[in-house]
Amino acid sequence: MIQRSPTDQVFHAVSDPTRRAILEFLTQGPLSAGEIAALTAVGQHLRILEEADLIRTTKNGRVRTCELRREGLRPVGDWVEERQTPWTRRAEPRVSHDFGED
Amino acid sequence: MIQRSPTDQVFHAVSDPTRRAILEFLTQGPLSAGEIAALTAVGQHLRILEEADLIRTTKNGRVRTCELRREGLRPVGDWVEERQTPWTRRAEPRVSHDFGED
Repeated sequence: MIQRSPTDQVFHAVSDPTRRAILEFLTQGPLSAGEIAALTAVGQHLRILEEADLIRTTKNGRVRTCELRREGLRPVGDWVEERQTPWTRRAEPRVSHDFGED
Repeated sequence: MIQRSPTDQVFHAVSDPTRRAILEFLTQGPLSAGEIAALTAVGQHLRILEEADLIRTTKNGRVRTCELRREGLRPVGDWVEERQTPWTRRAEPRVSHDFGED
């Protein structure tokens, strides 16, 4: 087995989406291994992703295949973009309040 | 139960780190529900995170508690920062190559 340097180990550890998710949960405070397992359990998550139209699942015999619907993320992108674009105009009221006439 | 709008559903779906991890896996192509469950199974991931010194686990009877070691991410931040800082100097050779004398 290849011996990894400590820095290699950290990069490898954060290269995986599930491990980044686990680290994100732990930013809120300590959790037991069982609690982490429950948070990452897949069944309920797939249901929520499917209801939000972010994935499409098809059943072939006993195998359920999940596929990303990239266009499903559009509402999030749109929402962010709409709030980023007129940024200078939106900032004006706050500026004129801070340096008001009276 | 509260009826969520489609946009609310998408935001709720991507608000969870595990679900974002699942979407990230699916950007590579379709996966079966079983494959996703295997990718998100927690035991092996906790071992890798602990070996990389990103979490500290303590055992209390049968409960293993996991705690984030925020300083463990420093090698990643340092590596990125070291490559971002001298950006203008590093970009020069490429610029002089594109618009070279000969």
